[in-house]
Amino acid sequence: MVTVQTEAIELLKEGHVTTPKGFTAGGIHCGIRKKRRDFGWIYSETPAVAAGVYTMNAFQAAPLKVTKRAIAESNQLQAIIVNAGVANACTGQQGDIDAEEMQQNAASILNIPASYVGVASTGVIGTPLPMDKINTAIQEISITNESAPHHFADAILTTDTVTKQVAVQIEIDGKTITIGGAAKGSGMIHPNMATMLGFITTDAAVEADSLQLALKQTTDKTFNMITVDGDCSTNDMVIVMANGMQENKVLNVSHPQWRLFVDALNMVSEELAKMIARDGEGATKLIEVNVKGAPSQETASQVAKAVISSNLVKTAIYGADPNWGRIVCAVGYSEQPIDPNKVCVAIGEISVVKDGVPVAFNELDGKHYLQQKDITIQVNLQDGPYNATAWGCDLTYDYVKINASYRT
Amino acid sequence: MVTVQTEAIELLKEGHVTTPKGFTAGGIHCGIRKKRRDFGWIYSETPAVAAGVYTMNAFQAAPLKVTKRAIAESNQLQAIIVNAGVANACTGQQGDIDAEEMQQNAASILNIPASYVGVASTGVIGTPLPMDKINTAIQEISITNESAPHHFADAILTTDTVTKQVAVQIEIDGKTITIGGAAKGSGMIHPNMATMLGFITTDAAVEADSLQLALKQTTDKTFNMITVDGDCSTNDMVIVMANGMQENKVLNVSHPQWRLFVDALNMVSEELAKMIARDGEGATKLIEVNVKGAPSQETASQVAKAVISSNLVKTAIYGADPNWGRIVCAVGYSEQPIDPNKVCVAIGEISVVKDGVPVAFNELDGKHYLQQKDITIQVNLQDGPYNATAWGCDLTYDYVKINASYRT
Repeated sequence: MVTVQTEAIELLKEGHVTTPKGFTAGGIHCGIRKKRRDFGWIYSETPAVAAGVYTMNAFQAAPLKVTKRAIAESNQLQAIIVNAGVANACTGQQGDIDAEEMQQNAASILNIPASYVGVASTGVIGTPLPMDKINTAIQEISITNESAPHHFADAILTTDTVTKQVAVQIEIDGKTITIGGAAKGSGMIHPNMATMLGFITTDAAVEADSLQLALKQTTDKTFNMITVDGDCSTNDMVIVMANGMQENKVLNVSHPQWRLFVDALNMVSEELAKMIARDGEGATKLIEVNVKGAPSQETASQVAKAVISSNLVKTAIYGADPNWGRIVCAVGYSEQPIDPNKVCVAIGEISVVKDGVPVAFNELDGKHYLQQKDITIQVNLQDGPYNATAWGCDLTYDYVKINASYRT
Repeated sequence: MVTVQTEAIELLKEGHVTTPKGFTAGGIHCGIRKKRRDFGWIYSETPAVAAGVYTMNAFQAAPLKVTKRAIAESNQLQAIIVNAGVANACTGQQGDIDAEEMQQNAASILNIPASYVGVASTGVIGTPLPMDKINTAIQEISITNESAPHHFADAILTTDTVTKQVAVQIEIDGKTITIGGAAKGSGMIHPNMATMLGFITTDAAVEADSLQLALKQTTDKTFNMITVDGDCSTNDMVIVMANGMQENKVLNVSHPQWRLFVDALNMVSEELAKMIARDGEGATKLIEVNVKGAPSQETASQVAKAVISSNLVKTAIYGADPNWGRIVCAVGYSEQPIDPNKVCVAIGEISVVKDGVPVAFNELDGKHYLQQKDITIQVNLQDGPYNATAWGCDLTYDYVKINASYRT
């Protein structure tokens, strides 16, 4: 990853959840998974203002309920603990009890209020948490300077093949503010909030309501705009912690540099979201669908999602087939008010549809373009000022292979 | 297919679009497709009352517009001509001209008004119709007694591996009424109206408005409740022709046996819809999802569709994995008002979830059940009186193989 200047936002060459001041993190193997690390934590030296967004799935897993309640209590978190391997979803009352026990035991060890502890789980649905292993793991939480963000990023994974970490820096009130993040997600990914977990940390001082608003807005444009397979999980959440250790003038929607902060948060989320899409189960390509010219934000988003979710578009891309017909078809069934006679489509830089009808193009050029690992599709509805971007991946044999045998 | 008595409806051992009195049909190879038949027709001795339902896709193909207009003119059709291989979609003005030319040339040959001729196309999007071949084919339409419904059923196929035909019989006013049907559809199948074509014929006398109503209601419960891959095409339609040759007291919503007629129409549609789902690209199994106990019809339908459309459920079934967690997850992301603590799920006869939590069951029994070719999943929301059924198929390697290389 190279250092990039986007306006005033610096994307760091190597960034983690502990790049912002005052955060430590770690991860260990506690035995839920066969060999991999499966228990992780993030800790802030001081209580941090916190916000969260959660799955729309009617079956919200127990850990989500505990975390939601914790944040609702004082809008603060000081620690998050995460286990992988077992989702603690569809586990009834026992699941609720276990999630609370996790929270309380971690609070004890860290000597902080239980409501300052957030809890997350990811993995197989319906199996109870192995609380003996979890409790042993909690005893091993270490908050000394030996911080190991890579271990945390690794401990939260399930079918992911790579860790997903990032950090950016901006200048607010003459202070260098850092926003870091780690995420997991590979299969069962779809807006709204597929099985993905996102943890964002910052040393900025931010007001609670504004932070929640920023997180929601950002999530709608990033994490909620990725799809791997159209399924949407029971466990998704994104949590942001702002511990204020840079002592900037507290950020809120009225702060003159609020826009910059939100853009930086957006960049962190977008980078993580793309990493998730790229790591989709079986994926060989990252696909980005850009829709512009929409009559409303809703239309722009829905059209982008329809195209990125289309199994026929995804398989065509896998086969490097510049099959614009399927793209057009997906635009059409988004059930949005579009004028078919205005729709334009481009595959990469290659124009393939103009005003609703195909234009001649070199099929071989199209094929070569689609053989790359990063694909963009442009859709212009020519009917308004709104735009949206969605990310996903191709649909491959490996997706079927992985999911015809993985027990989630 | 055995003869089955369902109440008063007899499912015929071998039924076609020409089983009802006064219909002939045929199909030939005109050169659009490499070897297969690719041009077909249905003809009624007398003009028939007609009704149609069409794709919701914003990009309605040219043939749909022509057929819609034709039916709107007098609610009658006397012939339908169909070509396979080229969809005549996204073909702009030329496509409209070509579809009208098809209609008019067929009307000429058959010596009937152009507005009595319906037109359908299916196949690759964006390529213009090869009008020379189409016009030659039209010259060869034969309406003599040498009727070949199998040839018609074959001529309308694209990626299908089998023809789809059916007929039922009922007694109305002491007359034997027959309803026959043929359909095509394999990939790009999804409610609302994936690339599928359905042609239903009957020798009953039916009023136009009532026929349209019956077709719409039936379609919503059958053709619109099947999915193969979540994509929804530009060309879908279902047309019904009722030529009145049995001279029953004309059927309408007030007729004492209206319910029986609608049930029979429903059985024809359901049989065809299931054949389509079973023949899904790459499919090895037919899956039926039954939802009951829903607080509204909309909820019942949406939950059924969410489960049947889930790539993760489809791959699990392919792998014979009784993965109830993915089923529950799909129920949850249907975005319907459901109470997670009431949801029950069964795989075949095996109860796997009760009141939102898993119940112990023999995994091996689950696996053996899922190794069959006909799978049912039962979801009980325990929250109302509404129910719905959706059909689909498993997601397999062959689906990816077919669609990473087929140009649609």
